[in-house]
Amino acid sequence: MRRALDLAAAAAAAGEVPVGAVVTFEGRIVGEGANATRSRNDPTAHAEIVAIRAAALALGVDRLGGCDLWVTLEPCAMCAGAIAHARIARLYFGAGDPKGGGVAHGPRIFSQPTTHHRPEVHDGLGEGEASRLLVDFFAARRG
Amino acid sequence: MRRALDLAAAAAAAGEVPVGAVVTFEGRIVGEGANATRSRNDPTAHAEIVAIRAAALALGVDRLGGCDLWVTLEPCAMCAGAIAHARIARLYFGAGDPKGGGVAHGPRIFSQPTTHHRPEVHDGLGEGEASRLLVDFFAARRG
Repeated sequence: MRRALDLAAAAAAAGEVPVGAVVTFEGRIVGEGANATRSRNDPTAHAEIVAIRAAALALGVDRLGGCDLWVTLEPCAMCAGAIAHARIARLYFGAGDPKGGGVAHGPRIFSQPTTHHRPEVHDGLGEGEASRLLVDFFAARRG
Repeated sequence: MRRALDLAAAAAAAGEVPVGAVVTFEGRIVGEGANATRSRNDPTAHAEIVAIRAAALALGVDRLGGCDLWVTLEPCAMCAGAIAHARIARLYFGAGDPKGGGVAHGPRIFSQPTTHHRPEVHDGLGEGEASRLLVDFFAARRG
């Protein structure tokens, strides 16, 4: 999660909403990403999607069974769907997101009976630092 | 929708689940894609995601307000989330998907109060041909 938080901080410095994500396999980082929707002109370039795509490409597979995803913010519905498609084994997220989250809030994707795969979910890791990055980012943009 | 159906048929010929999608702006195709999860080693490479990414890149924007998305199958939760993030104005889909759909089934993303943007939704266009492509594809794989 330390690396994901550093990626989030770097995203903020680049003018992107500060969210970072890392995919690990057997404790080793196999893919990482930060929110990059503006710089890449890609509305799907959330940190989780960037990290999942990087990991699958690096491993030469289209499913990441046995891999874990670490992300600083609760995934939205799009990213939760991607996590299910990728067969991620364990999801660790930092701050909850009552407005945009799709795991513990909103559509609660992994609680839907039609969701084909559900990772183990662990929340609250690095929550304080993850939240602070987001609050500071949006405060600076309004300021 | 004719172009989306042709893209779906081409996907089947390439061994991918046959789903095709097209993004239009003022009646002109600005992005297109077919399901390519296997060939690209990318669990997020559903037709809608491929088409949205292509359109945003082509137009040099990170939001596709005013654009329409045409897809042969009901979008899943991941793709419905991407459609909301991209601010797609109108969604036209062919066949409904009771098992994996996220618009008219399952999490019904656009009916969630936390979903920030809802496109107009029109279904059933080219439904027969879209369904037939999928049924034939899975029958051949089981055969």
